[in-house]
Amino acid sequence: MMTAILQGTPHKRMALVTGRAYPEQAEATAACLHAEVLKSTAYDFANGEMYVRFTEPVRGADIFVMQSHTVPINKWIMEQLLMVDALKRASARSITVVAPFLGYSRQDKKHQGREPITARLMFDLFRKAGADRIMTVDLHASQEQGFFDGPVDHLTAMPVLLDYVRGSMDLGSTTVVSPDAGRIKVSEQWAAKLGGLPLAFIHKTRDITRPNHAEAHGIIGEVQDRDCVVVDDMIDTAGTICEAVRTLRSAGARSVTLVATHGILSGPAVQRLRDADVRAIILMDTVPVPQAKRLPNMVVLSAAPLLAAGIRSVFESGSVSTLLNGLPTDIHPRNIYA
Amino acid sequence: MMTAILQGTPHKRMALVTGRAYPEQAEATAACLHAEVLKSTAYDFANGEMYVRFTEPVRGADIFVMQSHTVPINKWIMEQLLMVDALKRASARSITVVAPFLGYSRQDKKHQGREPITARLMFDLFRKAGADRIMTVDLHASQEQGFFDGPVDHLTAMPVLLDYVRGSMDLGSTTVVSPDAGRIKVSEQWAAKLGGLPLAFIHKTRDITRPNHAEAHGIIGEVQDRDCVVVDDMIDTAGTICEAVRTLRSAGARSVTLVATHGILSGPAVQRLRDADVRAIILMDTVPVPQAKRLPNMVVLSAAPLLAAGIRSVFESGSVSTLLNGLPTDIHPRNIYA
Amino acid sequence: MMTAILQGTPHKRMALVTGRAYPEQAEATAACLHAEVLKSTAYDFANGEMYVRFTEPVRGADIFVMQSHTVPINKWIMEQLLMVDALKRASARSITVVAPFLGYSRQDKKHQGREPITARLMFDLFRKAGADRIMTVDLHASQEQGFFDGPVDHLTAMPVLLDYVRGSMDLGSTTVVSPDAGRIKVSEQWAAKLGGLPLAFIHKTRDITRPNHAEAHGIIGEVQDRDCVVVDDMIDTAGTICEAVRTLRSAGARSVTLVATHGILSGPAVQRLRDADVRAIILMDTVPVPQAKRLPNMVVLSAAPLLAAGIRSVFESGSVSTLLNGLPTDIHPRNIYA
Amino acid sequence: MMTAILQGTPHKRMALVTGRAYPEQAEATAACLHAEVLKSTAYDFANGEMYVRFTEPVRGADIFVMQSHTVPINKWIMEQLLMVDALKRASARSITVVAPFLGYSRQDKKHQGREPITARLMFDLFRKAGADRIMTVDLHASQEQGFFDGPVDHLTAMPVLLDYVRGSMDLGSTTVVSPDAGRIKVSEQWAAKLGGLPLAFIHKTRDITRPNHAEAHGIIGEVQDRDCVVVDDMIDTAGTICEAVRTLRSAGARSVTLVATHGILSGPAVQRLRDADVRAIILMDTVPVPQAKRLPNMVVLSAAPLLAAGIRSVFESGSVSTLLNGLPTDIHPRNIYA
Amino acid sequence: MMTAILQGTPHKRMALVTGRAYPEQAEATAACLHAEVLKSTAYDFANGEMYVRFTEPVRGADIFVMQSHTVPINKWIMEQLLMVDALKRASARSITVVAPFLGYSRQDKKHQGREPITARLMFDLFRKAGADRIMTVDLHASQEQGFFDGPVDHLTAMPVLLDYVRGSMDLGSTTVVSPDAGRIKVSEQWAAKLGGLPLAFIHKTRDITRPNHAEAHGIIGEVQDRDCVVVDDMIDTAGTICEAVRTLRSAGARSVTLVATHGILSGPAVQRLRDADVRAIILMDTVPVPQAKRLPNMVVLSAAPLLAAGIRSVFESGSVSTLLNGLPTDIHPRNIYA
Amino acid sequence: MMTAILQGTPHKRMALVTGRAYPEQAEATAACLHAEVLKSTAYDFANGEMYVRFTEPVRGADIFVMQSHTVPINKWIMEQLLMVDALKRASARSITVVAPFLGYSRQDKKHQGREPITARLMFDLFRKAGADRIMTVDLHASQEQGFFDGPVDHLTAMPVLLDYVRGSMDLGSTTVVSPDAGRIKVSEQWAAKLGGLPLAFIHKTRDITRPNHAEAHGIIGEVQDRDCVVVDDMIDTAGTICEAVRTLRSAGARSVTLVATHGILSGPAVQRLRDADVRAIILMDTVPVPQAKRLPNMVVLSAAPLLAAGIRSVFESGSVSTLLNGLPTDIHPRNIYA
Repeated sequence: MMTAILQGTPHKRMALVTGRAYPEQAEATAACLHAEVLKSTAYDFANGEMYVRFTEPVRGADIFVMQSHTVPINKWIMEQLLMVDALKRASARSITVVAPFLGYSRQDKKHQGREPITARLMFDLFRKAGADRIMTVDLHASQEQGFFDGPVDHLTAMPVLLDYVRGSMDLGSTTVVSPDAGRIKVSEQWAAKLGGLPLAFIHKTRDITRPNHAEAHGIIGEVQDRDCVVVDDMIDTAGTICEAVRTLRSAGARSVTLVATHGILSGPAVQRLRDADVRAIILMDTVPVPQAKRLPNMVVLSAAPLLAAGIRSVFESGSVSTLLNGLPTDIHPRNIYA
Repeated sequence: MMTAILQGTPHKRMALVTGRAYPEQAEATAACLHAEVLKSTAYDFANGEMYVRFTEPVRGADIFVMQSHTVPINKWIMEQLLMVDALKRASARSITVVAPFLGYSRQDKKHQGREPITARLMFDLFRKAGADRIMTVDLHASQEQGFFDGPVDHLTAMPVLLDYVRGSMDLGSTTVVSPDAGRIKVSEQWAAKLGGLPLAFIHKTRDITRPNHAEAHGIIGEVQDRDCVVVDDMIDTAGTICEAVRTLRSAGARSVTLVATHGILSGPAVQRLRDADVRAIILMDTVPVPQAKRLPNMVVLSAAPLLAAGIRSVFESGSVSTLLNGLPTDIHPRNIYA
Repeated sequence: MMTAILQGTPHKRMALVTGRAYPEQAEATAACLHAEVLKSTAYDFANGEMYVRFTEPVRGADIFVMQSHTVPINKWIMEQLLMVDALKRASARSITVVAPFLGYSRQDKKHQGREPITARLMFDLFRKAGADRIMTVDLHASQEQGFFDGPVDHLTAMPVLLDYVRGSMDLGSTTVVSPDAGRIKVSEQWAAKLGGLPLAFIHKTRDITRPNHAEAHGIIGEVQDRDCVVVDDMIDTAGTICEAVRTLRSAGARSVTLVATHGILSGPAVQRLRDADVRAIILMDTVPVPQAKRLPNMVVLSAAPLLAAGIRSVFESGSVSTLLNGLPTDIHPRNIYA
Repeated sequence: MMTAILQGTPHKRMALVTGRAYPEQAEATAACLHAEVLKSTAYDFANGEMYVRFTEPVRGADIFVMQSHTVPINKWIMEQLLMVDALKRASARSITVVAPFLGYSRQDKKHQGREPITARLMFDLFRKAGADRIMTVDLHASQEQGFFDGPVDHLTAMPVLLDYVRGSMDLGSTTVVSPDAGRIKVSEQWAAKLGGLPLAFIHKTRDITRPNHAEAHGIIGEVQDRDCVVVDDMIDTAGTICEAVRTLRSAGARSVTLVATHGILSGPAVQRLRDADVRAIILMDTVPVPQAKRLPNMVVLSAAPLLAAGIRSVFESGSVSTLLNGLPTDIHPRNIYA
Repeated sequence: MMTAILQGTPHKRMALVTGRAYPEQAEATAACLHAEVLKSTAYDFANGEMYVRFTEPVRGADIFVMQSHTVPINKWIMEQLLMVDALKRASARSITVVAPFLGYSRQDKKHQGREPITARLMFDLFRKAGADRIMTVDLHASQEQGFFDGPVDHLTAMPVLLDYVRGSMDLGSTTVVSPDAGRIKVSEQWAAKLGGLPLAFIHKTRDITRPNHAEAHGIIGEVQDRDCVVVDDMIDTAGTICEAVRTLRSAGARSVTLVATHGILSGPAVQRLRDADVRAIILMDTVPVPQAKRLPNMVVLSAAPLLAAGIRSVFESGSVSTLLNGLPTDIHPRNIYA
Repeated sequence: MMTAILQGTPHKRMALVTGRAYPEQAEATAACLHAEVLKSTAYDFANGEMYVRFTEPVRGADIFVMQSHTVPINKWIMEQLLMVDALKRASARSITVVAPFLGYSRQDKKHQGREPITARLMFDLFRKAGADRIMTVDLHASQEQGFFDGPVDHLTAMPVLLDYVRGSMDLGSTTVVSPDAGRIKVSEQWAAKLGGLPLAFIHKTRDITRPNHAEAHGIIGEVQDRDCVVVDDMIDTAGTICEAVRTLRSAGARSVTLVATHGILSGPAVQRLRDADVRAIILMDTVPVPQAKRLPNMVVLSAAPLLAAGIRSVFESGSVSTLLNGLPTDIHPRNIYA
């Protein structure tokens, strides 16, 4: 055998660190794991450049770098890149970027010549900075997993959202509604997981068979006197989805509930949702939803238990895909609401 | 200025080379460009390994390496990889892989844990072998352009197929039909480009609002006494599309025409199409359609003019995206049929 | 010779494109080259993500992508990364990032453990996005050229600034002053290039030989009744340099003129400069200096002629290092002032 | 020390997975290690594309991916590439490609201009797909180890083959024969390891001193009334080696035994061997030797114990080079015959 | 859980290996760690090429490859590269290059066009050969840490040198002197760490305010009747520093002590130091200081304890930056003198 | 078309640069091309580090960097690496490393565990420094072409050496001799190209059929009264080849002529050759053969015409493989002797 060497007992350490965009989420995630967030320093210089530093050793540890890609989004992405660079140079054993909502993931292809593919660029930038793995929730297109030259832990909020819907609605009178043709498949999954609910979807032109006529919104499926659950991946400016609400109500729906993973709520979104005739809005806090944006009928579920379950799976070399069926029972959020 | 140097007039040369899967296509493409295919040698060893060699210099030239990803598909992909490696080592200035139908492009994401993303792998393998650029037609998902760390010339067969349909049908009585919910957007483009035709689409369950009931096929939109054009990206085993034909005919459609870019026609496809009650099947030869598979009502359009136009755009540093509006008038195929 | 190929006359094209941070600079640079800026589209989405697109072909061209790293700096850096990605995917022949002031270049080393090296990260991100070359002016440390795995065109504003000083001051009574010990070497170059002027420098403690005593500022060299020119690489918050002005005036300097390449002017800078007793402030617009920040005694020289000269050197395969001796006479800015 | 972290006991796991080319070999290898092959799913689509998936978690494990590069060789190489991609994306800790006979390894250099170097390409493709290490047996040229940018575990079948020869022949009357000039060095090793046996070799021209005369085969060394053992790295079409048998028998050899690592046996090989006047053919099953190809005088030794020993060395961080002296005594194949 | 796998207890092993430039240093470092240097073989071929081999297994171990970049410097750098390549191919788990003085690190930027940046090149070459990490002492410029795309353990000799100075001088009469303007900041750190000593520095021109006058050396600060400690990063040819000694003595300094990390002592250095009027010369043996170069007033401190402390920090996943405050008390060199 | 761009006529420039190992060869090569060597500066620092700089612009040019890998071989390899780095940073369009004899190319595989593969390492180092292409003559093993991830122009000295032999010997009485079994194939090529000459080869043991007997040298083939030409790839210490001479003379050879591409002539080589009973020694100057090593019967042919022909082929995008049949007639060396 080899002589003349140092021998030791290896240990395996994981740590969570967070940027400044939404530190509460990192703390909630750590709490689910009975851990704490590693301390770090971060501030802005006068010209907008940022400084970050970790105040505790990270050498040899598996680090999860959490950041919420919320406004100002370019700043927070850059801060996360800086953190990854610092961890790489500080000899972290592995670096996992945790971006519950991945910024720029909507532009996942070229619609015209001479456009970027910003989703691929994000994966490239994190890779180059030093990320070994990406953890994220409900990418805009599943194909984006292929944009990373390494493992992507693609979590889905569906079990968490389903749980809440199951507990808060009378499913006997409920219909699942897709807000446009492109998301019918997801709605079918929802309807099936909720026990075989009826489906409906909204199409953009009054008469799908005459596309050149004036645009309006029609409904395929029965919604009259039904409690409708409209399922989408994100609510950004809320334009389309509020139009859907109007269409459903005009068609006689008894109530409309909106469900989405990413509650981005930009620009006119809050006003539009306030004006919309909805029973409830159920979101996950993959980006923070500040108090000022919270409406009385809005429920913001914490993403922390889901992220904690994903992180623990990585830690224990378990399978992330088992999370499709719900979170493990011992991941107890102090509060399911964010 | 610099002394002691050799000076010369640069020249710019492009050449087409082809694998053995479908050399006729390379020749047809070269003919559209008033050029010839560069000579090469290729054969199989007894154990199935292959030998390739280019018999003319390629140093300093921009080479387009054409191969059809048809059966035996793994062999032809490997042959193309070998050709790229040989070109790289022979100092070609740039290497463009031309794969009109890109093999393995259908698995573009992980549906479950521990699957590969084969579409990404294809791009990776060609990149590693030495490809600078990929040219292909109608990828299964547009997101796949982002799988390559470099330029992808993503051509579409739509203008060529549209041209043929325009010239062969009475559009007054025509309805565009999407074979499933996932392709409604493409069908909308078709309907619009054909002058605002009516649309319809087929959904999988008899009653979209009751997903757990026995599966059947229903139609949204009016097809009674209409000449239906069903548009898809490929016809592989033809199971789904032939089911669509039956559904449309049962619903009173006067005729059904099938249009697809990739006429793969595997396994039971030809028999199914022969048995189906269709007026015409319009395909492009992105993979070869051998005589034995050709039905009397099948039209196979040559991909060569489209590929030639794409190659010339690259050669002249023009824009590939202009091809969306149709081929340039001076790209004259000797025959539009493959 | 090779048969069966397309032959053509190669042409060589360069184009300038610009982000939205400071388009006037790109236009001024183009004007120096008797060219125009290539058209592009760019706007913000509601959540702060950005969209960019080039509206003219770039295939086969050598593109210079200009962007000013001004506030909001993370946004503009990200926009430039998006532009580079789009150019790479659009088959530009080469991509040169032009960042007259390179953001994050001040953190060029680790001062403590677990810090990033942000300057290296910037070079890495641009490389990964697709940049072949970086052009910039007066990096904070010359060593940063080594952070890029490729050519860096490191321009210096010194000839332009020297020219202005020569034309606007009576050199007979002028002394060059270094604002701290770390920049004495640059001040020596200035003194030499101005014909052997006297030098002075400011040190931080009243008595350099007793470092633990109360901190104050002392002057080495004679400044009494002299017109002092204080030379620095950038004026950011202007704290240090305004302290230097006070020290010099207290020591009997007749006048103080401030010269710096990068007029960043963040936070309290303008107020401090307004309050300072300075004859003139001479800056270059490597970041834009908006009207609101311009003081009556401030001169902002245009970086455009310098950038144009650098770009033309690359275009004509000339030497950038010759620009150390001044700009070529045929690069005529319409106005030397930005 | 670091606070706020998860701590755990690391464990070290290895698993064997196999493609569909020769699963029996993986099972035999696993059996030698008292382990089982990890379950996976794999099948062909109608157009020849393949699907693979691992049905058990592999996260954090060291995975050995076995595949035999037998006919259809391009298919099985591609399947192995797909498996590697899936493992990379499923967060395997390390991936070792086990290819007992590495396909395309014979073309290890350019004989003429514009050829590929297919052996290098194979290493490149596996590297790009995600392989960290390659394990293989008796490469065609030892230089090929240098084709991989990482560790190659290059096993040799020589100890296993030697063992069998020692146990089955009367070495007193045996002469080791090289089938051509290029393999004399290997034959010398054999002769030495068998206790200093006499050597002979076959040359291609009757008179080595007159190369332009009609080609025939001559023998250097004494074979009259000797039991000859002809040693080669592979028997593919068996043309050369059967010619050698004829030459030896004509020269009075009492018997001829053929020994080779890779029993590829393509095309006319079996018929040629059947017709040849040989006492025994001793092969290793680095590719499967189906029952239909087995002749009564053919012995096919299992490669499983050798592969198991190699894998265990990697697992225990031992030295593969010690296997040159024979397998460890506790690697007991259930049957030394494949 | 995963079935069919081998399980084992992981162990963690580190080993030191050394090139032939200065094996005594590796042995001293190993002794500090109560370990031994791993055995290896190395010799020169007749034409100057070298052979290296490790005679014990390294598979799975963390290896530290020590080499001193002393004369003949290109040979020893190359030998270290060969060692790294051998370790990579022998499946070492990680490879740390330990170069106490990193050769070529002085050219860290381009002073003129068409120069290399040799410091970056060194990092690149070691990276390519297979190094995961670099450990070195007192780089010429701290920015060079950013030249490596990975972690750099940048140790400093300052605590060791400070300790010696504290123990050997009467600090009451001591002044810290910077030999040129560029190193004032380091001298300030020294003065502070020694308890607030007075500072002085030498400038190149008699009158800093009149740079064109004849060059001479002046002193800023009070040195009359003081015991001066001149601090530099290296003593190579000793020209500048011996000139400084003369200047200080002329100005009335009572004694002059020279302190430097890297005692390179090339060419005329020893003769110059012998002729200089210095009390003591304190160096560290980051390159070997052979007996023939040792003057009676020269103290050569061993770098081994510092390197051992750095290596142990990596082994125990501790923080290297804590070494700034001195070595751990349980790293006992047998002799602090090299 | 694209607006707003600079347009220009591209030009194509090539330049030769050389290290200091053997500048005469670069000059002779340039002379063959009616060109001159580009000026550069290079010198050694006192501690053995080197400085290089090109004094003329290289931006946009195709540069051939010549260096002879002669003693001190590690120094000259390093100098060439420095030159490549400088050219990369100076925006050369392409960089071709010309190493007529590639140092370290003999160790092209691992003979035992834990050795490097130095030949691969050389290719890796040059690639990383920035080389796009390698040009070399007669690699030790042709497989080494596969060590580079790009084009290798592998020239052979055979046509030049053949020419000289044809012109200087009476072929009627000549026999081609291989100095060992491993090089018989090359000797066969020689014999064929010289018009079908007889062959012989030397084997190491007196009786090839009894390997354990005392080692001696035997000859296969007829050499009695023949003029023998012994062909090898290099003469390093000349031990083996001088032994071959003795064996041939003992066997009655009338004369012995030695031919080799690389005349390395290390250590005892010259004395051995002086003592050997040879008619002539024919070498190429891929490394310089200084006057002191030249024996009266030694002919040193210039490699310059061969290198010039190779370079011109690259310049004109011609085929290097055509050089196998002899140099082009318009490449006239001023003197065929080096």
